[in-house]
Amino acid sequence: MHVLIVGAAGMIGAKLSARLAGLGWLGDREITQLTLFDVIEPTPPAGAAFRTETVAGDISLADTAPRLLAARPDLIVHLAAIVSGEAELDMDKGYRINLDGTRLLLDAIRAVGEGYCPRVVFTSSIAVFGAPFPELIGDDYVLTPLTSYGTQKAVGELLLADYSRRGIFDGIGIRLPTICVRPGKPNKAASGFFSNIIREPLAGAEAVLPVSEDVRHWHATPRSAIGFLLHAASMDTALLGTRRNLSMPGLSVSVGEQIAALARVAGEGVTRRIRREPDQAIMRIVAGWPRAFEARRARELGFDTEERSFEDIIRIHIEDELGGSFIA
Amino acid sequence: MHVLIVGAAGMIGAKLSARLAGLGWLGDREITQLTLFDVIEPTPPAGAAFRTETVAGDISLADTAPRLLAARPDLIVHLAAIVSGEAELDMDKGYRINLDGTRLLLDAIRAVGEGYCPRVVFTSSIAVFGAPFPELIGDDYVLTPLTSYGTQKAVGELLLADYSRRGIFDGIGIRLPTICVRPGKPNKAASGFFSNIIREPLAGAEAVLPVSEDVRHWHATPRSAIGFLLHAASMDTALLGTRRNLSMPGLSVSVGEQIAALARVAGEGVTRRIRREPDQAIMRIVAGWPRAFEARRARELGFDTEERSFEDIIRIHIEDELGGSFIA
Repeated sequence: MHVLIVGAAGMIGAKLSARLAGLGWLGDREITQLTLFDVIEPTPPAGAAFRTETVAGDISLADTAPRLLAARPDLIVHLAAIVSGEAELDMDKGYRINLDGTRLLLDAIRAVGEGYCPRVVFTSSIAVFGAPFPELIGDDYVLTPLTSYGTQKAVGELLLADYSRRGIFDGIGIRLPTICVRPGKPNKAASGFFSNIIREPLAGAEAVLPVSEDVRHWHATPRSAIGFLLHAASMDTALLGTRRNLSMPGLSVSVGEQIAALARVAGEGVTRRIRREPDQAIMRIVAGWPRAFEARRARELGFDTEERSFEDIIRIHIEDELGGSFIA
Repeated sequence: MHVLIVGAAGMIGAKLSARLAGLGWLGDREITQLTLFDVIEPTPPAGAAFRTETVAGDISLADTAPRLLAARPDLIVHLAAIVSGEAELDMDKGYRINLDGTRLLLDAIRAVGEGYCPRVVFTSSIAVFGAPFPELIGDDYVLTPLTSYGTQKAVGELLLADYSRRGIFDGIGIRLPTICVRPGKPNKAASGFFSNIIREPLAGAEAVLPVSEDVRHWHATPRSAIGFLLHAASMDTALLGTRRNLSMPGLSVSVGEQIAALARVAGEGVTRRIRREPDQAIMRIVAGWPRAFEARRARELGFDTEERSFEDIIRIHIEDELGGSFIA
């Protein structure tokens, strides 16, 4: 099978490419070709047995998606997005890439015609939800995003469902939890601290905690996120019925529980590298974020996290990103 | 104030124009100008004390909305849409008018800038909901449309909320129940029979009932729909918070209750003009439609129907459309 990843240069895209290279198969189908697309040229994964091609371009230009689809990929994983903070600051850019880019991709699939009906895996986000909501958000809860990014993802979900209903492609949308521990440098995303307070202390560096320890949020490891994508790519979508978008499983953990788990895994000393520096602006933003999901449908359909506790989340980070060791 | 109605040639648009002409004021503001826009030139209302201008055009062309906004209307009522059946048959046309047309209108408001921030009243529909759902649909229930029309309305709701949150305009979306009794000729809409079985017998004509009498649906009169629009146009939108889209109140009535009410208002003889002719295709479509809404938020915010029973719905039809009499 031929796999196309749109938005392949990001953290998830790179991990998914590497995983596909390692597997060589997806379900019972051998991967014969991988096309990696992004606004900057993605790096091909090491050690792939299949042919990999990399393409750089702008998904919001009318001729980009038709060219990507010329070889009729069997599976399209659409990860590309302007992230939350940037989509909020640059409204035009967010709508152009996240809404128009997605629609151009979906319409280009439709334009192929001739019975072409690929699987489309769309990464949505828990940002489609906005406060007020219940402590535990069920699968039937209304989508009322409080950012333009969340709005654009919610529109993507609606288009995905309508085009799938019409048989234009076989779509599935997965709402990823906040990815923790996110590898790489600390960034200025309001959600960055959830990962910073684990990743930086384990690397011997100081991290800033801008909120109180009772802040609760919904987490999954990068490893689980890749597992969700692989399952979405190969599962029997007939089981979805008409509801093609799913909130993914995760762990609901408070910041205090995160820090306690870090102490248990890495020792009290490591947690002393967390500096409390309350930031009212970040506290206000985070107050509007979801804390926990039921994710019953996703679990029933076979989606599951790799981790069972926040200790597992930390251990997976140490295994996958730090070669098994940390700075005590 | 200057009022612009987009989609003014339809049934609701014509009734709203006539009502504005009769009122002369909206809340505490005098109406000084009314602009009526549609794809065919709308008919200006009789007896208006204010200046009325009529414009015909295509809302999906890039220069249409900017020209309509040149005079900076204070209130924009956006009713224009390709209806459900046509949007399903002609996917391009539905997306072009219902999604692109709406977005072009909203973006044109943004492009005016200079502190321009009109009230925008957007008519959405209960078609944003799709089965399965509970017997009574609450205000927090997820939107999973099962038609392209419902999808396009749901996207309109999301854009309306995001642009309002950004302060681009002051938007409110109202999800209208099925309008009953809809005046005019019987049409081929799957929902047509809900009105046909009342309107045609009262006019001495036969009507076909394609479903069983236990089918339950959500109704409001044209008079109530105009009341909702007027309230949305003048209410304090600060009370909405970030959730700008509301399910409107209505009456949940079974077809059997409709017929029993017709017998009480107009006599058993009139109901004998209803011919049962089961249609499996229509029964399947109708099975996916909502039956009843809680509409608690809308009621708390002052939206209310004119009718308290289905007898009232029939009496309002006789008053407003038949000059007070019917054929017994």
